[in-house]
Amino acid sequence: MNKIKDIFKKSLTTKDNNTLEESSRRDFLKNSATLSVSAIAATSILGPVKASADEKQIVNEVEWGTKLGDKTTKYRYGIPSPYEHNNVRRNDPLLSSGDEYATVTMCPIHESEGIITPNGLFFTRNHGGTAHIDPNEFRLMIHGKVKKEIILTLDELKKYPCETRTYFIECPANGSTDWRAPQYNNLQFLKGMMSCASWTGVMLKTVLEDLGLEDDAVWMLAEGSDNAGNPRTIPVEKALDDAMLVWGQNGEALRPEQGYPLRLLVPGWEGNLNTKWLKRLEFSDKPWHSKEETSKYTMLQKSGKAIRYFWINEVNSVITKPCPEKPWANIKIGDLVEIEGIAWSGQGTIKHVDITFDGGDNWVEASLKGLVLPKAWTRFSYMYRWEGKPLLLSSRATDDLNNTQPTIDQETSKQGVESVYHRNGNVTWEVTTKGEVNNVHIRKHKA
Amino acid sequence: MNKIKDIFKKSLTTKDNNTLEESSRRDFLKNSATLSVSAIAATSILGPVKASADEKQIVNEVEWGTKLGDKTTKYRYGIPSPYEHNNVRRNDPLLSSGDEYATVTMCPIHESEGIITPNGLFFTRNHGGTAHIDPNEFRLMIHGKVKKEIILTLDELKKYPCETRTYFIECPANGSTDWRAPQYNNLQFLKGMMSCASWTGVMLKTVLEDLGLEDDAVWMLAEGSDNAGNPRTIPVEKALDDAMLVWGQNGEALRPEQGYPLRLLVPGWEGNLNTKWLKRLEFSDKPWHSKEETSKYTMLQKSGKAIRYFWINEVNSVITKPCPEKPWANIKIGDLVEIEGIAWSGQGTIKHVDITFDGGDNWVEASLKGLVLPKAWTRFSYMYRWEGKPLLLSSRATDDLNNTQPTIDQETSKQGVESVYHRNGNVTWEVTTKGEVNNVHIRKHKA
Repeated sequence: MNKIKDIFKKSLTTKDNNTLEESSRRDFLKNSATLSVSAIAATSILGPVKASADEKQIVNEVEWGTKLGDKTTKYRYGIPSPYEHNNVRRNDPLLSSGDEYATVTMCPIHESEGIITPNGLFFTRNHGGTAHIDPNEFRLMIHGKVKKEIILTLDELKKYPCETRTYFIECPANGSTDWRAPQYNNLQFLKGMMSCASWTGVMLKTVLEDLGLEDDAVWMLAEGSDNAGNPRTIPVEKALDDAMLVWGQNGEALRPEQGYPLRLLVPGWEGNLNTKWLKRLEFSDKPWHSKEETSKYTMLQKSGKAIRYFWINEVNSVITKPCPEKPWANIKIGDLVEIEGIAWSGQGTIKHVDITFDGGDNWVEASLKGLVLPKAWTRFSYMYRWEGKPLLLSSRATDDLNNTQPTIDQETSKQGVESVYHRNGNVTWEVTTKGEVNNVHIRKHKA
Repeated sequence: MNKIKDIFKKSLTTKDNNTLEESSRRDFLKNSATLSVSAIAATSILGPVKASADEKQIVNEVEWGTKLGDKTTKYRYGIPSPYEHNNVRRNDPLLSSGDEYATVTMCPIHESEGIITPNGLFFTRNHGGTAHIDPNEFRLMIHGKVKKEIILTLDELKKYPCETRTYFIECPANGSTDWRAPQYNNLQFLKGMMSCASWTGVMLKTVLEDLGLEDDAVWMLAEGSDNAGNPRTIPVEKALDDAMLVWGQNGEALRPEQGYPLRLLVPGWEGNLNTKWLKRLEFSDKPWHSKEETSKYTMLQKSGKAIRYFWINEVNSVITKPCPEKPWANIKIGDLVEIEGIAWSGQGTIKHVDITFDGGDNWVEASLKGLVLPKAWTRFSYMYRWEGKPLLLSSRATDDLNNTQPTIDQETSKQGVESVYHRNGNVTWEVTTKGEVNNVHIRKHKA
């Protein structure tokens, strides 16, 4: 087998060189900005050469074809390939300061595909560790200014008609490590405090219309069963809009670290409002003032005062391909590459995304790819022919309410630098002539 | 804590009784068929009563709130709650005959939510076990009647622009245990040879247009790297339509048992055509006649001859709520229940689904819920007030090409009973007056 492997590698190395040399001589595109993805692809990205008879023989004799695989019944619940051991959540050392209970684990968004984050990789931000709750003992209390106060079992709650919807969840501190200056040359640690999933549960509106709210119930408190509880005040208007009580995530029960067996979902709003291990919903005519909305999750201003109840995650985007962890390896002048990224808005649906290659002097429009859903990750793409120059690569998303991402300077002039929250200024990658990718700050763009 | 648990249970038991008695006295609906889901829900499904002060105190003192949870950093790749240990793939003893390599593990579709199957639960049907392939040594050969024959590494393949699309995969033998008569009182074993996922990869059309097909290339052979290889002939027309080479499933790399690192996807066609651990694609002017399309995956007829190259999974549906594993527990006359199920068609998009409560004499139209995508699972729902009678509950799906599920008699008269494949006759649940659910055959419906 080693001999086969050697020949395999040798033949492929030769091929790679041929491919790249051939690619570099080609003039694929007259104008990459005006061609569709499929039209561009049809002009040949790989510049392939004929496979030799020897190579074909080798492909037919690979080791895996000579022996029986694992028992099909080995995994009743499957796990990833051991070769994917690097595609994991990571604890941000800057944010955690060594605490492993009240901390965050970042989603490997540089490895993500499409708009669904697998449950094993969905980011976590817990204030007191991961609670483990017996679903048979779980209870949800709904009380206060509600006509029929109630304590529900999970089975009782599941009698309501269910809905499945795709939404992102993002911590308002996502990007906070870069608030003043770049601190990580790493997409996972820069923007990994978010993920996107398909959620199943009951619309909170359905439950509240069933129980009946008092006329002066204008605020709702959501509290979790865990030791931190994370009590948070939410306007009833949002509860009656698109909020959900969810027990399912991506087709199965919530994972323990996502609030098993029940969490509140407030689509597009700060992650900490999506209360995990939900214990109770209380209704009142006045807002609460919990520690999570006094010492935390407020926007400190230059004046020393803080803005409270600042809920909505703004329109945002980031380029995921390339990124610091996924540079352009062995790139040659004339190579055609796909630039891809994620856009999202807590206020609505992504309408368009622009891309700049020169730090904001000029912009071109990217294509939106796949499903484009409200308050969900949306993929964008642009086919680009690299001409050998260094780039300052950035994206700028706009949603259907015409909210557009600001520059870092616009953001700073509006919000100051006292708070780490709600950062949505453009992320810029410097791409070197070797194809390496670095996180840099471009504070201003041309008008 | 035990005391709290006891009071908790006592209080909830009392509440349950009140709730159910109150529910039974109500006349929720004048006409359940004409009301929307939210309108029905608003009339109260639970009939709740006031929570007492004692109960509220108990909810505020639950055990989980008194101690720190697990370290948030414990799982770099998360796993389900131990309480979900029953939501697993299961090996069908009838089909496997004790073989754990060339066998099937069935998806727990009775526990599924929405239209995404988590990767850990996606059904498997392997012919020689699960191959484990080093992605760095992986090669894909494309040869035969193609202008530029090539051997590609995974990285080279990933240079093509990627797409993410949601499709089901179904084994043509799904439902085969019921071909002549019901053999399982169990949805997982009856229809669990299918799952649905969001797939990421390159359109095969993009690659083939890049390499250039010879004019007389009308057939494609797909073969896997595993010891079984599973060689299968596919028309080039399908390869140039919606076929994909996929490396991503639900946002991460394919799992080993799904063909890591690359599988062929031929949306809506028999599962065995979606070659795992893909090794080579060969093009020819003639079809192949591999053992997988002679001894297997053919439709034996009464005459003793078999139909070959029978690819498309027909329009189909099944009710998942209730089902034998999920009966109506403690149901009372007048209770309002959601009937939910999955519909799918390999030929197009689900257009509508009808439901019968009397074994096919009368039908009502269900609502389609959530995303309705071509060749993907589609959820349907109907809010029903149970009047205390036994039911013969069944669904009938129609796709946008106006294909409609046949009755079992229609199916049998067309296809005979010699072959186990391509079974899409209506599945019927008998629901007893106790809410138990049994798998029965209703061979004919009224016209």
